Amino acid sequence: MSLITLLTDFGTKGGYPGIMKGVMLGINESAHIVDITHEIPPFDCIAAAFVLYSAYCFFPPGTIHVIVVDPGVGSEREVIAVKTPKYIFLAPDNGVLSLILNDEPDALAFRITRRELFLPEVSRTFHGRDIFAPIAAHLSKEATIEEIGEPFDAVRCDLIPRPQVLHKQIIGAVIYQDTFGNLITNIQESDLATAKITGNLFITINNTSICGLSSSYSSVPAGQPAALFSSAGFLEIACNQASAAEKLGAGNAASVYIYSKS
Amino acid sequence: MSLITLLTDFGTKGGYPGIMKGVMLGINESAHIVDITHEIPPFDCIAAAFVLYSAYCFFPPGTIHVIVVDPGVGSEREVIAVKTPKYIFLAPDNGVLSLILNDEPDALAFRITRRELFLPEVSRTFHGRDIFAPIAAHLSKEATIEEIGEPFDAVRCDLIPRPQVLHKQIIGAVIYQDTFGNLITNIQESDLATAKITGNLFITINNTSICGLSSSYSSVPAGQPAALFSSAGFLEIACNQASAAEKLGAGNAASVYIYSKS
Amino acid sequence: MSLITLLTDFGTKGGYPGIMKGVMLGINESAHIVDITHEIPPFDCIAAAFVLYSAYCFFPPGTIHVIVVDPGVGSEREVIAVKTPKYIFLAPDNGVLSLILNDEPDALAFRITRRELFLPEVSRTFHGRDIFAPIAAHLSKEATIEEIGEPFDAVRCDLIPRPQVLHKQIIGAVIYQDTFGNLITNIQESDLATAKITGNLFITINNTSICGLSSSYSSVPAGQPAALFSSAGFLEIACNQASAAEKLGAGNAASVYIYSKS
Repeated sequence: MSLITLLTDFGTKGGYPGIMKGVMLGINESAHIVDITHEIPPFDCIAAAFVLYSAYCFFPPGTIHVIVVDPGVGSEREVIAVKTPKYIFLAPDNGVLSLILNDEPDALAFRITRRELFLPEVSRTFHGRDIFAPIAAHLSKEATIEEIGEPFDAVRCDLIPRPQVLHKQIIGAVIYQDTFGNLITNIQESDLATAKITGNLFITINNTSICGLSSSYSSVPAGQPAALFSSAGFLEIACNQASAAEKLGAGNAASVYIYSKS
Repeated sequence: MSLITLLTDFGTKGGYPGIMKGVMLGINESAHIVDITHEIPPFDCIAAAFVLYSAYCFFPPGTIHVIVVDPGVGSEREVIAVKTPKYIFLAPDNGVLSLILNDEPDALAFRITRRELFLPEVSRTFHGRDIFAPIAAHLSKEATIEEIGEPFDAVRCDLIPRPQVLHKQIIGAVIYQDTFGNLITNIQESDLATAKITGNLFITINNTSICGLSSSYSSVPAGQPAALFSSAGFLEIACNQASAAEKLGAGNAASVYIYSKS
Repeated sequence: MSLITLLTDFGTKGGYPGIMKGVMLGINESAHIVDITHEIPPFDCIAAAFVLYSAYCFFPPGTIHVIVVDPGVGSEREVIAVKTPKYIFLAPDNGVLSLILNDEPDALAFRITRRELFLPEVSRTFHGRDIFAPIAAHLSKEATIEEIGEPFDAVRCDLIPRPQVLHKQIIGAVIYQDTFGNLITNIQESDLATAKITGNLFITINNTSICGLSSSYSSVPAGQPAALFSSAGFLEIACNQASAAEKLGAGNAASVYIYSKS
């Protein structure tokens, strides 16, 4: 199988993801292309990093993940390919791979240099079509990452702010708001251990206090807020059958505090 | 062919449908997955039941329809599989199959119990990924429904309110508002015969009266309301080239009255 | 390969594109279907014409492009198929192929007449499902365009207003606003030569003046407006990392003036 995923901020209105698929299928007609999302908020590399991190490992080994959230398109930023034991990632070098690289110590990075594999005419505005799509298609067919680039050791991997992990206290932030209004933070389960917060805890966000962790949305009454570790491993503030963003009046970058009760 | 359809309220923003596809393709690389929609309003099982009903029979025999609109995720609700002569449906047991079951007297229902076919770690928040996707992929490959579940005779099938069908009068309700603002009701063509409404009739909704049925949107002037039986067989209130929801100030649950003129 | 693209104004909420895919896969199980977009603003044939024009030529030869933006569904408008050296286009005859036909002098047009290839029951409201999907699937399999229609020489191709090209001056209009708020006009690069505008120029739109053309969004400071020829070859007014539509208070049909500086 030649599986390629797409994760962009193009939206689906203008046909841009479809155009990328046309280019890829023109190069490799047996490419199997899956959309992760095209609804990343425009230019929001942190959201892209988070959605990618929550999705990538559920695809079969050999999958090529293509990320085009690229505020610097047309500028001098590099296009990079990163190879891990199971996957290849193709992305602009803007930090969007930060969470992947934290988890993948054996990743190898390359900057893409084989211009003759790009579309013959490269625009300044749509590298998704002119560079990312043809490179991904060639990688899905026969080209190796070593053939299309040069080793690159300066990949940006500092995009996601880390929470402050103190003694029995953590200060984090909302990094992503999902479709349901759930607020995903930068706090991971391991941070609790580091802060020596075991058992009972309080979480506060924008004047709302939540006591303890829940195991599911439906373990609190409808409309009530709950804190739980999301399916991607990050602390998430949710409201059962309602939007936490609306109910709590909080969104991206809102501060989230965790205190140990004991 | 191993055709699987997806119908969820996940939206496409967070990558959840893509993740489900990754899981399925990891189990059955030749699965052919088609999105029906991921834009069901959050937790709106009635809308899901309606969209499923309008779509399912246009897919080839053997298709596996996967429905994940699941306000009770993480609670004790069952995950069920329903087998009809042509299709398999996989859904939470919350009534979302009500319209299907009304039409399919020979359907067999099972509750899913083969936990070793789920993803190794089952979250409390994302059964689409952890249960529905792997089960659908196994069903599309070789597993039979009998192997993955136990017969279940208590499937919820009472989700959609039925209209009141009286003598020469029907009192129904809007159950779904589509993309164009068309208002779809729970009144079916057979209800007219039952009410002995033949030929001329009046329809009223929120102080607007519509005289008679139209055969197409464009048979009334632009902007004017029309009543017609939709492509899914339900009475639909529409405005030619405009949103009936906006023009008539009506939406989900609005009452719709039909009176015989004669 | 049997590649079929879909471009509609159906949205993805109601499952209509999925239903079309079900119909197509029931006729040709090896059809490979790619969405260009389903988010054309309802009934906006000009936007559809533009998005199609910017996408079609990036697909491999042999692709069948299906366009269903069809305010006249259910009326007497024809369904047409247009054959160019590389592609087949299937669309209602409402001008949506105007830009294609301008560029393809050797196109052959047919009106679709083989009713026995439609779905057995043709509704008045959903020809995408009942006519376009089965015809596209048959074309992708073995049917030729000559077998399913009759030559038709009255195709509408005058939908897109042409700019006024004067001496050292062009008066054009915004024809499409993309996902990012970029404003795409009906002015093409060749119009500059015709107007004898070389080198330096001014562009004005809704009281904002832009001096000269840019080669990329990022060549102006963040938030500032730039004018550039888009990846589809039309003059585009954009703001670096912001919405030009919002910043300039301009949208569809806004006038755009180009003056020569010298």
